Amino acid sequence: MVITLENGGVTSPKGFKASGIHCGLKEKGVKDLALLFSEAGCTAKGVFTKNVVKGHSLDFTKNNINSGKTRAVFINSGNANACTGARGSSDALEIARYTAGKLKIGKGDVLLGSTGVIGKPLDMDAIKKGIDKAVGQLSSNGGKDAAEAIMTTDLVSKESAVKFESGKKTVTIGGMAKGSGMIHPNMATMIGIITTDANIDGKLLEKAFKTAVNKTFNRISVDGETSVCDMVIVLANGMAENEPINAMDKEYTDFQNALEFVCRTLSVMVAGDGEGATKLVRVDVENAKTPEDAYLTASSVCTSPLVKTTLFGEDANWGRIITAAGYSGASFNPDKVDIYIGSLMVCKDGAALDFDEAIAKKILEHKAITIKINLNGGTFCDRMWTCDFSYDYVKINGSYRS
Amino acid sequence: MVITLENGGVTSPKGFKASGIHCGLKEKGVKDLALLFSEAGCTAKGVFTKNVVKGHSLDFTKNNINSGKTRAVFINSGNANACTGARGSSDALEIARYTAGKLKIGKGDVLLGSTGVIGKPLDMDAIKKGIDKAVGQLSSNGGKDAAEAIMTTDLVSKESAVKFESGKKTVTIGGMAKGSGMIHPNMATMIGIITTDANIDGKLLEKAFKTAVNKTFNRISVDGETSVCDMVIVLANGMAENEPINAMDKEYTDFQNALEFVCRTLSVMVAGDGEGATKLVRVDVENAKTPEDAYLTASSVCTSPLVKTTLFGEDANWGRIITAAGYSGASFNPDKVDIYIGSLMVCKDGAALDFDEAIAKKILEHKAITIKINLNGGTFCDRMWTCDFSYDYVKINGSYRS
Repeated sequence: MVITLENGGVTSPKGFKASGIHCGLKEKGVKDLALLFSEAGCTAKGVFTKNVVKGHSLDFTKNNINSGKTRAVFINSGNANACTGARGSSDALEIARYTAGKLKIGKGDVLLGSTGVIGKPLDMDAIKKGIDKAVGQLSSNGGKDAAEAIMTTDLVSKESAVKFESGKKTVTIGGMAKGSGMIHPNMATMIGIITTDANIDGKLLEKAFKTAVNKTFNRISVDGETSVCDMVIVLANGMAENEPINAMDKEYTDFQNALEFVCRTLSVMVAGDGEGATKLVRVDVENAKTPEDAYLTASSVCTSPLVKTTLFGEDANWGRIITAAGYSGASFNPDKVDIYIGSLMVCKDGAALDFDEAIAKKILEHKAITIKINLNGGTFCDRMWTCDFSYDYVKINGSYRS
Repeated sequence: MVITLENGGVTSPKGFKASGIHCGLKEKGVKDLALLFSEAGCTAKGVFTKNVVKGHSLDFTKNNINSGKTRAVFINSGNANACTGARGSSDALEIARYTAGKLKIGKGDVLLGSTGVIGKPLDMDAIKKGIDKAVGQLSSNGGKDAAEAIMTTDLVSKESAVKFESGKKTVTIGGMAKGSGMIHPNMATMIGIITTDANIDGKLLEKAFKTAVNKTFNRISVDGETSVCDMVIVLANGMAENEPINAMDKEYTDFQNALEFVCRTLSVMVAGDGEGATKLVRVDVENAKTPEDAYLTASSVCTSPLVKTTLFGEDANWGRIITAAGYSGASFNPDKVDIYIGSLMVCKDGAALDFDEAIAKKILEHKAITIKINLNGGTFCDRMWTCDFSYDYVKINGSYRS
């Protein structure tokens, strides 16, 4: 049984401490530097952006994550360490070296994340002073501060944690994430940090993590963009002292389910807090010929600016849904498609139904909306989350740097 | 030499008449029905939406365009004949039959276009009365009325025409088009009608047309959407009495160049009049490894909501340009990329330049903006047009049906 921990986050599992402070990259008083520390060395795994342009801090993490004894994660927001040439790479090294020195661990034991405006060199003086402060404030209640410190245009911080029994021990999994623009499925799609005190074999941790990410973080879309700094990482420090999970048995399945729960909770929060979002939208595609067809259809509908503005306008313009399905690249028979908005069928066999517009309007006024597309052509399904497209998306992104 | 005709359009070539009237599908007085008629039978070619969902009127046209003696084109706006089941197909047939009767031609000699809200059956009474009226008003000065009658959310009607010498005869090519949402390169991307009095072999007409469309209508993006009613067709009635163009010679090249000029003029007008657009943006990609890499990069930058909102905000946030290039699927070395906004270099070797923000701001205040991305990795280039993403795009599409 998986039990959700109220106010849980990255410091819920045993042995993890965190802090989140203001170092000066964002406006006065707003947290912009997060530090996570584990008392024991962690097995760490990650999924990283597929963008061919990669941030310097992300590159550092990609190269160091398999060292096998990760102890700390440093993340700054407000200014991404990306596209600043050789300086960016040396800044990443220096942050790792400095953080390691303060924590008395190896520089390869530190992982880095960085998010914000790209192409602007980091203020290293501010960051070093920030690291001093963050090290001093590390606490086993620091998860919330850390989750706040990694926010960019997010309106709310995002945390989740669960516990479950593994053998006779309690294992805990916690996490934090930040969105909220440049969100689209292409491996990791934002920054997410998952911690656990589980004792689990590295290969199985990787397998469980990739499976979970694929069904959660890779199933949300805010604007179809893939940032150069996107990553989700998981750290397992083994301090729950459960019998090591080293086979595909019940213990593995329990771990996998709990991990997926945390990842789904965080990723749906990211979609719902998309830039300018007023609605959280779940898109279910059913009875596709192939898994790929189901995915393509869901992804196309979730990314369509016309579908998303229609949802913002609370208008049951389902023609845009079938249109987005039609150009998705999925193969299906348009004359067999049924579409539902909430529980209301609006299109049957690819043609208009004479539905009650007032009922449709009522459904669309809700904050959470479900769209179901039944392709009636096979047995495969997929599910994705997105948000609507509002004036505020344009406002936020028309003046992001200013 | 290609000479542009002032106020030219679909009725500029010899033998073409057109009309545009109000039949009642749009609000009072707004034109919503266009008719085009040729005195002589035309060779007709078309490119059609790649959307697997296809409008009923478009389907009819696809099936009839190769009959070899097209005489008329009927287009209604305000309500697309799409996703209305069996009724939609019989409505298409009936419109062709009725139009043919009034014009005393065969029903297979009529092509159909239809655009507007989908999933709502056409008001056939209004349309038949409209056809009566439109037939009565056919005129060799009717191109402008027809161009107005095919508009949906377009703010301006779009026409272009040129003439050139072919042998000792003057050949004329004219055209009209409408955008302005659901515009993205996937074969035809809106409705476009090109007319010419050229005498040209059908296969060569098709070849010239596909080449021209690929470089023009397939190189514009407003919102990444592909409608179910998109098509561009060309009609050639031979009335210029030029020596038949039936080989890949100078006459063919002249025709091809003139055709491409008309298609480019119309397609750039469509991009500049994109829904809510305040700017026309040209994206040039240079020195890509393959033509596909050049295209993917240009397409990704032209479609990125973050690039487009940045342009609306007149902010030189080039990080979003390199990010969109990076996730485009194109293969390139990010450390070699140079980016220019107008003539101002803002990124060299993939890293930030310390450019003058005031100059960048001045460039971005213009209505027409050029972005150049030099991948420095090969010899191939591509060019696309797009527009910015504004509050008005959200406004227009949040309440399109209302």
